[in-house]
Amino acid sequence: MVEDNLKEKLKKVNQINITQQTSIRSLISSLKNTGFNAKRLANACEIYERMLHDPECIKFFGLAGAMVPVGMQRIIHDFLDEGYIDILVTTGANLTHDIAEALGYHHLQGNVDVEQLDDAGLHKDQMNRIYDVFLPNKVYEGIEDFVSQLDLPSNEMPIHEFLKLLGDQLPSNQNSILKIAAEKNIPIFCPAFTDSGLALQLGFHHRKLNLNHFTDMLKLIDLAWDAKTSGVCIVGGGVPKNFIFQSLQFCPTSAKYAIQITMDRPEPGGLSGATLSEAVSWGKVHEYAEHSMVIADATIVLPLLLWYLKTSK
Amino acid sequence: MVEDNLKEKLKKVNQINITQQTSIRSLISSLKNTGFNAKRLANACEIYERMLHDPECIKFFGLAGAMVPVGMQRIIHDFLDEGYIDILVTTGANLTHDIAEALGYHHLQGNVDVEQLDDAGLHKDQMNRIYDVFLPNKVYEGIEDFVSQLDLPSNEMPIHEFLKLLGDQLPSNQNSILKIAAEKNIPIFCPAFTDSGLALQLGFHHRKLNLNHFTDMLKLIDLAWDAKTSGVCIVGGGVPKNFIFQSLQFCPTSAKYAIQITMDRPEPGGLSGATLSEAVSWGKVHEYAEHSMVIADATIVLPLLLWYLKTSK
Amino acid sequence: MVEDNLKEKLKKVNQINITQQTSIRSLISSLKNTGFNAKRLANACEIYERMLHDPECIKFFGLAGAMVPVGMQRIIHDFLDEGYIDILVTTGANLTHDIAEALGYHHLQGNVDVEQLDDAGLHKDQMNRIYDVFLPNKVYEGIEDFVSQLDLPSNEMPIHEFLKLLGDQLPSNQNSILKIAAEKNIPIFCPAFTDSGLALQLGFHHRKLNLNHFTDMLKLIDLAWDAKTSGVCIVGGGVPKNFIFQSLQFCPTSAKYAIQITMDRPEPGGLSGATLSEAVSWGKVHEYAEHSMVIADATIVLPLLLWYLKTSK
Amino acid sequence: MVEDNLKEKLKKVNQINITQQTSIRSLISSLKNTGFNAKRLANACEIYERMLHDPECIKFFGLAGAMVPVGMQRIIHDFLDEGYIDILVTTGANLTHDIAEALGYHHLQGNVDVEQLDDAGLHKDQMNRIYDVFLPNKVYEGIEDFVSQLDLPSNEMPIHEFLKLLGDQLPSNQNSILKIAAEKNIPIFCPAFTDSGLALQLGFHHRKLNLNHFTDMLKLIDLAWDAKTSGVCIVGGGVPKNFIFQSLQFCPTSAKYAIQITMDRPEPGGLSGATLSEAVSWGKVHEYAEHSMVIADATIVLPLLLWYLKTSK
Repeated sequence: MVEDNLKEKLKKVNQINITQQTSIRSLISSLKNTGFNAKRLANACEIYERMLHDPECIKFFGLAGAMVPVGMQRIIHDFLDEGYIDILVTTGANLTHDIAEALGYHHLQGNVDVEQLDDAGLHKDQMNRIYDVFLPNKVYEGIEDFVSQLDLPSNEMPIHEFLKLLGDQLPSNQNSILKIAAEKNIPIFCPAFTDSGLALQLGFHHRKLNLNHFTDMLKLIDLAWDAKTSGVCIVGGGVPKNFIFQSLQFCPTSAKYAIQITMDRPEPGGLSGATLSEAVSWGKVHEYAEHSMVIADATIVLPLLLWYLKTSK
Repeated sequence: MVEDNLKEKLKKVNQINITQQTSIRSLISSLKNTGFNAKRLANACEIYERMLHDPECIKFFGLAGAMVPVGMQRIIHDFLDEGYIDILVTTGANLTHDIAEALGYHHLQGNVDVEQLDDAGLHKDQMNRIYDVFLPNKVYEGIEDFVSQLDLPSNEMPIHEFLKLLGDQLPSNQNSILKIAAEKNIPIFCPAFTDSGLALQLGFHHRKLNLNHFTDMLKLIDLAWDAKTSGVCIVGGGVPKNFIFQSLQFCPTSAKYAIQITMDRPEPGGLSGATLSEAVSWGKVHEYAEHSMVIADATIVLPLLLWYLKTSK
Repeated sequence: MVEDNLKEKLKKVNQINITQQTSIRSLISSLKNTGFNAKRLANACEIYERMLHDPECIKFFGLAGAMVPVGMQRIIHDFLDEGYIDILVTTGANLTHDIAEALGYHHLQGNVDVEQLDDAGLHKDQMNRIYDVFLPNKVYEGIEDFVSQLDLPSNEMPIHEFLKLLGDQLPSNQNSILKIAAEKNIPIFCPAFTDSGLALQLGFHHRKLNLNHFTDMLKLIDLAWDAKTSGVCIVGGGVPKNFIFQSLQFCPTSAKYAIQITMDRPEPGGLSGATLSEAVSWGKVHEYAEHSMVIADATIVLPLLLWYLKTSK
Repeated sequence: MVEDNLKEKLKKVNQINITQQTSIRSLISSLKNTGFNAKRLANACEIYERMLHDPECIKFFGLAGAMVPVGMQRIIHDFLDEGYIDILVTTGANLTHDIAEALGYHHLQGNVDVEQLDDAGLHKDQMNRIYDVFLPNKVYEGIEDFVSQLDLPSNEMPIHEFLKLLGDQLPSNQNSILKIAAEKNIPIFCPAFTDSGLALQLGFHHRKLNLNHFTDMLKLIDLAWDAKTSGVCIVGGGVPKNFIFQSLQFCPTSAKYAIQITMDRPEPGGLSGATLSEAVSWGKVHEYAEHSMVIADATIVLPLLLWYLKTSK
């Protein structure tokens, strides 16, 4: 009976204890035996750590949302630098913003009340808004200069090869996702590449370009197929989530570890909000996988997760 | 002063009146002078109707979410058939599911309690779950048969041309989005095409395929550039929202009408939940545009919107 | 096996069909065999209708949220007038706003962009904001006049008796919840009564008042206990949801019909977002109850629900 | 011009830097110059700290949601013990669960998949579910024993006096909210008291009880009126939020500091999701107040906030 089984599993809720001696590890340990999103966060931290300790696990990381503009660029950089990511799937927007920062431009923020902003005035000032973060429109001119001068060896290269080349040609930078991925030879996939400012400027300046999206799609399936064990961490949802999962679905072994951090909800049926349990029905996540979906803003959870992992032994 | 201006604009809240004689038009009219999402829904209906009555307006429609599986395929079909959409931007998933239905397969539903489902059992039964809708895995075999036999005139054709060809080759069907769009010559764009079951099977069976995504990107910009007036209706968000807006951003005239139906929220900074006011700062939506963002499940709002428009004169 | 059982239950998804001849009944019927919130809405309509046709069913209605300010006062009035509610549990705020409207004051709305409002300016103008609806502060003076002149037969009367007396003393009004409930002898419970502008003004002007909250609590349990069958419709959540459910929990028969319309979500563990399935574990909702939780703004769903019920035979 | 003003305020987004040496203070400092909810969290921490350093500030704390069951009881205990709260407003449910824990009973949790739970089975086992936390029904018997033996000096005492008496009579306990509040003479208000298991059992065993809710209401207004400066921290929303704000609304000085942690959203118009800016229009929050609304699960944010404050000098 389900209930007998359940009773054995249950133990008392931990009353979280915070002292001046609390560390990120004792915090997560304290959150673990509670419930709601505190427990989900603790589970996500521990699952990720177990992925790192599993020598056979290929770690897929899906990144959607305006994570670079809001100041998470270095967090992702460090995930790559520390070896926490084997394959990155992201959006063209995050890559466009990564180039902007790598070229020395900056996103802006301040003590502004979002509810009192004048978007028409911002437009006149050529100040693009991403919730409470801003990007001066002239930054795109700098990206355009860089992109227009790129020397492309082939018009039909796959996107992940193009992104490697792009990372190689970027100036040295301590935060850049493209740069560290290129240095560490970590492939970046970007299935909706043409849905980005970067692709627009490429398209304007390299009129014969036809980067091969299908090679990327098949390449990711090969990588998933070759993985003895696989783990997934999804930030946000969107195309990166589906692109990783459609690759795993066809493999002999589906994901054994799965984490998602999102604010989306399941009831309206979109994939971004779909539970990781639903992914089990598709064979994307394994029946016996450890999984945790944290319903939270990634800007709060990703720094905590990285902090936890950096103190791992 | 803002407040004086405000006071002039304010009038009393309408107490909604429902009788046996209520019609969809009187309902929407009654909701209009209220607030919260009732008013947003009424505004969305009226804005769409004004788009239809504006002879110069090019109507962009962005469709994300599992709309075909859940039974909204015919709704979108009718939007296309009635001339309510000039340019459709959607996801590969919706097109994959459209082909499934067009080939005579069906998505399944029933009186199931989502909270009591056994996803591991579903997987054993090869029954893929999309919240409370199901797709037997064998349907993909039918799609594969169709896709493998496609005769493709060129490996580098743009995606929208390929989708036209696909629609032409589908059997006659009263609900299919691809079919009616092909018949009516309404272009369908699908920027994240390789993120779909359709693209996977294409890629497996047509190994040299390299559909040109950049041509699509530039084509949509041309279409946006040529529009004297433009209007936008976004269902969900995701790549279709951004792809339409990045095209409008570069045009002399940004969107004069804008509608979005979504359950996403703005605070975590993702584009899907970004307000239409934020889009004004980017020049995607015009400062003086009529716009309405309905925070609701599209499965409730789209049928009401279509019903309203079908009774328009 | 769960899955075999499931397979028998599943049938094909209905492609919703909208024509100029669509009626509210054909719409709901069309939504029923789909999924996501469209199906939940259809189920809610049908469950409520079956409640009405069940002669033994006592219909509890929980109302939270700013429903009167936004224009849903008459909707609730009609639910009461039509006999769709046997017991109403609501918030002090809705009753305060109901009195305001019944005394001839009005809430205000208009074509305002919530994102551009100046709340400090509104405060200077004594214009209180409820999202995009407004209440001039001076309305409270009118309520105060009315309240200060009330002749109270007892300082310790239960709240539901006080509210009946209040309804009796209000001027005739075609929309008032308090008035129609008094006329029809439908009890109104308001467990968080002192959390309202109405109670504040009562307290200021009737210093010895000590309306008996415990009598109300025990009375509702008696009413629940006496019900042969019970059904519940919850709008929003909050105290009304819990107050109804804590009464049903102690009864020999828990709710056989249960509906909730809310935008809250379950993962953070609050009662407002808790699923109706969770209520089964407490014995608040019956194991075999028909239940549907619609994730939607009540300002869209309540008018549709009333419309559906008014066309019922 | 708004924009000139804005430009001066803007500075570059901080790329969050996490190292093994990161502390809670350096983390929050790093999050501050970003955006989205990371910045809101940092602002909330700093605003609360400034409240603590303002000797004239009376600190109101509103607590809704199932915080005691999930393991936040000790967190709230510590807020009270450390002097971070001057006046607590909460729900009857949190107090009921506080008594259960103080009497030696426990809430339960474990590695359960919420999506696979059998609520009917749980009901048979008399195991009440609060999302993924459980309370055996027999705990209520223990509460009943305690409550039935209470010696009440007056049937008409105000609730906050009754709760002080209750705290005094509870056994010594290192986590109990009622106990520490009684020891430290911090008043607890509970406006929706009869909406709780505690009140039900009181009502059953003390049939003449008529705790005076109006005295509480007026008392809180007096306390708010006497505050030279006031600050507010709201967890969740609900009745505690409104009860605090309705008291501040009538005072010469509205809240100078305001924090809310919630997952609710503003568009459906309910008070729980209403922005703190909206509260400015009512005079509940001061025009020049420092305020921050963190859109997050309190089970993640409250431990971080307490950790931050405990390391404050």
